[in-house]
Amino acid sequence: MANAVAADTSVALERDACYARPMIAVVGGTGPLGSGLARRLATAGEHVIVGSRDSSRAVAAAAAVCSAVPGARCEGAENLAAVARADRVVLALPGMALPEFFDRAAPRLAGKLLIDVVVPLAFEQGFATIVPLPGARSASELVQARVPTARVVSAFKNTPADALLDLETPLQGDVVVCGDDAAARAEVSALVGKVPGLRAVDGGRLANARHVEAITALLVNLNRQHRARTSIAILGLEPAR
Amino acid sequence: MANAVAADTSVALERDACYARPMIAVVGGTGPLGSGLARRLATAGEHVIVGSRDSSRAVAAAAAVCSAVPGARCEGAENLAAVARADRVVLALPGMALPEFFDRAAPRLAGKLLIDVVVPLAFEQGFATIVPLPGARSASELVQARVPTARVVSAFKNTPADALLDLETPLQGDVVVCGDDAAARAEVSALVGKVPGLRAVDGGRLANARHVEAITALLVNLNRQHRARTSIAILGLEPAR
Repeated sequence: MANAVAADTSVALERDACYARPMIAVVGGTGPLGSGLARRLATAGEHVIVGSRDSSRAVAAAAAVCSAVPGARCEGAENLAAVARADRVVLALPGMALPEFFDRAAPRLAGKLLIDVVVPLAFEQGFATIVPLPGARSASELVQARVPTARVVSAFKNTPADALLDLETPLQGDVVVCGDDAAARAEVSALVGKVPGLRAVDGGRLANARHVEAITALLVNLNRQHRARTSIAILGLEPAR
Repeated sequence: MANAVAADTSVALERDACYARPMIAVVGGTGPLGSGLARRLATAGEHVIVGSRDSSRAVAAAAAVCSAVPGARCEGAENLAAVARADRVVLALPGMALPEFFDRAAPRLAGKLLIDVVVPLAFEQGFATIVPLPGARSASELVQARVPTARVVSAFKNTPADALLDLETPLQGDVVVCGDDAAARAEVSALVGKVPGLRAVDGGRLANARHVEAITALLVNLNRQHRARTSIAILGLEPAR
């Protein structure tokens, strides 16, 4: 009897934990970066809601995650519906889409943890460079300006989308995590730590995201030139790599 | 007799090689980055002319190089005099000093190999960021615009000055080498290869320097936050590190 009671309690706790488990929304989750992150987060055991402007595309993308990741818990929803169900929101929209998105979504993002992975890239004859955004020196600073009460954290900006999508090949490289809220940085760093092969580096202030975004442009250009899939490592931090 | 002749010939060849060997000027060679590079280049066997606005300071800095590097060949001269004697010129001035320097020096730099190591940093309450330069998105692009006939190559931008100065501690990290002239990039990459611990990465177009310069701001901020001396590595290039 004692065993049976224990087993029942355990089941109930598991069910509660399951229902109580916070979800993570990936806005713009049908693009390569968003899809790749959704896969990796689902693999790490997170309950993911893939967001898209088009809910049917979101549902299809979520189904693709479930198909690629055995045991994944992943759903799809229109971007704002996805945001409404999550306290943690990954922003994986194209840089140019951010201002319009915030016109609609800013009130719904208030107070949430926003994980900004946007790099505002432009291409000039195949050469990648950073395109200036209106009123901010980085996508992350724009996000914070548009949702002042959010805990904005910049992360995964230098992790190649195709590498995130490719679950067969180990990831490598550092994820510089920037944000003005240290607890939020720690939370996102812990999330990074759940993705094998990636190391979180505490990047301090959110404004450092402007420098991290520039690295992406460099890596994209190196990839093209060297026919490679590059990432970066920060040397000289403790503990040594 | 045959031996004696051979010995004489050898001495003569050595002397000729010595006189014919091209010199490398380091403009702004009394600052930490310029001094560090002068030491490393002298260690690599290059004949270095340290340049400064003040020729007596240049001579003192050159003496310091000779004192730190056994067997170094290093002289000091006023910046423009140093430039006149070298076909390869390292530009290690503060970013803000560049426009005024070119007002005086541009005609003398025509056609030379200019190795630009400048990062236009500004500090806001201890936080490093890139300060926009007039009419260019990077120091390297400004240099090229001011001296159109020069072969401008961006290099050593992410190598910490204090690490360059400290001959006791091995260097580590990658030097991304950018420039629009592939042969000039190769020449500078070979120079980087003479500095133990550093690896040259072909960074392609000069415009990539804007992204490389941003990395320096990130590293400076990481150094302060982590009390570290950081550098970067590009992962995913062949041959693997």
